[in-house]
Amino acid sequence: MSADSQRSPLAPKRFPQMADIPGVALAAQAAGIRYAGRPDVLLVGLAPGTSVGGVFTKSKTASAPVLWCRDHIGTGKARGLVVNSGNANAFSGHEGAQAVAFTTKSAAGALGCPQSQIFAASTGVIGEPLPWQKFTKVMESLAGKLGPGNWNKAAQAIRTTDTYAKGATRTATIGGVTVTINGIAKGSGMIAPDMGTMLAFVFTDAKIPAGVLQSLVRGGANKSFNAITVDSDTSTSDTVLAFATGKGARHKRVSGAGDGHLKDFKAKFNEVLLSLAHQIVRDGEGASKFVTVNVAGAESAKAAKVIGMAIANSPLVKTMVAGADPNWGRIVMAVGKAGEKADRDRVAILIGDFPVAKNGVVVPGYDEAPVAEYMKGDEIAITVDVGVARGKFTVWTCDLTHAYIRINADYRS
Amino acid sequence: MSADSQRSPLAPKRFPQMADIPGVALAAQAAGIRYAGRPDVLLVGLAPGTSVGGVFTKSKTASAPVLWCRDHIGTGKARGLVVNSGNANAFSGHEGAQAVAFTTKSAAGALGCPQSQIFAASTGVIGEPLPWQKFTKVMESLAGKLGPGNWNKAAQAIRTTDTYAKGATRTATIGGVTVTINGIAKGSGMIAPDMGTMLAFVFTDAKIPAGVLQSLVRGGANKSFNAITVDSDTSTSDTVLAFATGKGARHKRVSGAGDGHLKDFKAKFNEVLLSLAHQIVRDGEGASKFVTVNVAGAESAKAAKVIGMAIANSPLVKTMVAGADPNWGRIVMAVGKAGEKADRDRVAILIGDFPVAKNGVVVPGYDEAPVAEYMKGDEIAITVDVGVARGKFTVWTCDLTHAYIRINADYRS
Repeated sequence: MSADSQRSPLAPKRFPQMADIPGVALAAQAAGIRYAGRPDVLLVGLAPGTSVGGVFTKSKTASAPVLWCRDHIGTGKARGLVVNSGNANAFSGHEGAQAVAFTTKSAAGALGCPQSQIFAASTGVIGEPLPWQKFTKVMESLAGKLGPGNWNKAAQAIRTTDTYAKGATRTATIGGVTVTINGIAKGSGMIAPDMGTMLAFVFTDAKIPAGVLQSLVRGGANKSFNAITVDSDTSTSDTVLAFATGKGARHKRVSGAGDGHLKDFKAKFNEVLLSLAHQIVRDGEGASKFVTVNVAGAESAKAAKVIGMAIANSPLVKTMVAGADPNWGRIVMAVGKAGEKADRDRVAILIGDFPVAKNGVVVPGYDEAPVAEYMKGDEIAITVDVGVARGKFTVWTCDLTHAYIRINADYRS
Repeated sequence: MSADSQRSPLAPKRFPQMADIPGVALAAQAAGIRYAGRPDVLLVGLAPGTSVGGVFTKSKTASAPVLWCRDHIGTGKARGLVVNSGNANAFSGHEGAQAVAFTTKSAAGALGCPQSQIFAASTGVIGEPLPWQKFTKVMESLAGKLGPGNWNKAAQAIRTTDTYAKGATRTATIGGVTVTINGIAKGSGMIAPDMGTMLAFVFTDAKIPAGVLQSLVRGGANKSFNAITVDSDTSTSDTVLAFATGKGARHKRVSGAGDGHLKDFKAKFNEVLLSLAHQIVRDGEGASKFVTVNVAGAESAKAAKVIGMAIANSPLVKTMVAGADPNWGRIVMAVGKAGEKADRDRVAILIGDFPVAKNGVVVPGYDEAPVAEYMKGDEIAITVDVGVARGKFTVWTCDLTHAYIRINADYRS
């Protein structure tokens, strides 16, 4: 991996300044699971009363920690989170389940809380036994170091092949009272080379009931994490968890996801999710361009998403973007293969702001030169109207380059 | 394209010797549609009484000739076929439909038959108007040259970015009487760089009623052309047509697809389809390895196919094969993302004849070295049992290499 470990050209300039979140304490440490000389375990302590919501991979071969989280998310209560990088604890059989049990038990002991309120996530190699003894050995030491944390270090600890640590922060008001939302994430492919996983953790000091938090996570993830693709390969370990400590300034009680005074919080929460999701795409394996695919005119938003994903996942569209080649017939092909309704004779396509096709044929007097020039940039927008109804959706992806092949085929894992 | 136009390393040694088919006359010629100095139009004349069956792309943006063929396949009668390379006549609006109308009218005139009995296929650039005048100009000349043909030249005329002409032939017996089955095809990707399309045409001198032929094509295509993938991108123009002239030696009357004396013919017909389908995979853009993916233990054959395609289309599996890296966690990932039932704790995986995983975990004492050595070969088999029921299916693909990126991203089309 070393040859490709330079920071992605699409990376943000720096990790954001992130404020402390009352009720959240962080500690990261090197446990030597796979990587030498860098933190690879993150422990998060959460104040009593913290609520939790989460969404997980739909993979039929989901990892052991995903199964653990799914089993416990229903209680809505969280006191701790343990995350390791270097080993995904996926396809690890009965031993894998045991590893999660031992890890969460050890964290519960160190934090003095019920085991069922510890959440866990693992990212890294699939199919190798997780050396859980390495965590349990450092757990007391981690618990001793817990403090209002270094978010950058926490984000570093959960990286695998990511070329940069990913964080996002917003403040929001609930009924005039200011609260903070911090998020960290990792991911460089739906599954990364040999490694696994997209993970994201969001923390707030607002007091949000678990049911409301769950609804916010689900809704927000659909338009952020579930709307990105690097290589169409879904990880066994994808996890998004949000924690609300309720230890910030006192604000109006939130009773439901539809509460009017939750509007700003919800918007900012979604911004944090979207920023993290975009940062994952910007760190897509071998990415040289960030691509926004807007689909409109579909039968429904769901149909628009299927079409958008068909475009975003098409190797021919992705290589067209990499080659800065406005070969828009490939976009037509992808619309066609999506299987959703499209009116061939009303399809319109824009690349950036340049109309290339309208009413199912190339625009009259089409001049390719400025479009090719635009495609040399590193932010490319593709907009398609399929001319059927009013459904729309936006997805994000990156291009497919030699570096992707180099990362995934040229080096032994 | 020139830099990549050397013959695929996976190509068969030579074009097969193919016998004449009574009732089939071929002619190919350069019409200058896009390529200079090589035949790019193929005209096939078919004896009166020839039956036809066919299957076509399911793309929602299907090309104009596909729409024409779909409209006329129901009659079961064919007297001619016109194929051009260089322009797919797809996403070409009303003009595209007119181009097919003029082309088939001109062929019908030259062959002296009803226009509705002329079939048409086009392969090449999407979104450009088809210069149909270039065909109609050469149609009389082509008709004059028709003869028991040069199959190799016919296969050459329908190539776009294919690195070799594709043909397959078998003899079969029907009730003790020998008949011949010849097929030609083109394709180098579900859609090739800028160009389009997978096309296959099969001819026999047997007397097969159209309904039976249709049933044979549909059944055969499902286990051959519909079981291959190069890059997951479905063309706007995919077409398989089979023609039976009935002008060979007189054999027992065929009344239905289930006729006992059709057994050998059906087997050989399927072999021709499968050979052509494999030749397309072996000419997959940038392919360096031919990959067979066997899935067993699925809920149904259909479920097994979904899982097989998820493996065969996974960029991470394809780059793993390219890199000769037995990183089997990626196969687990692909099984998981397919969405079909899989028993995580009973999944078994073989690479070649080497068991790598069993009962949901790596095999005891797993030795990676011989597996890595095996993967350096150019024929790779991946076998997965998902441990649910008895459904099975086999699909074929190729690896994903730097050459794929070079072909599709590095050169302007």
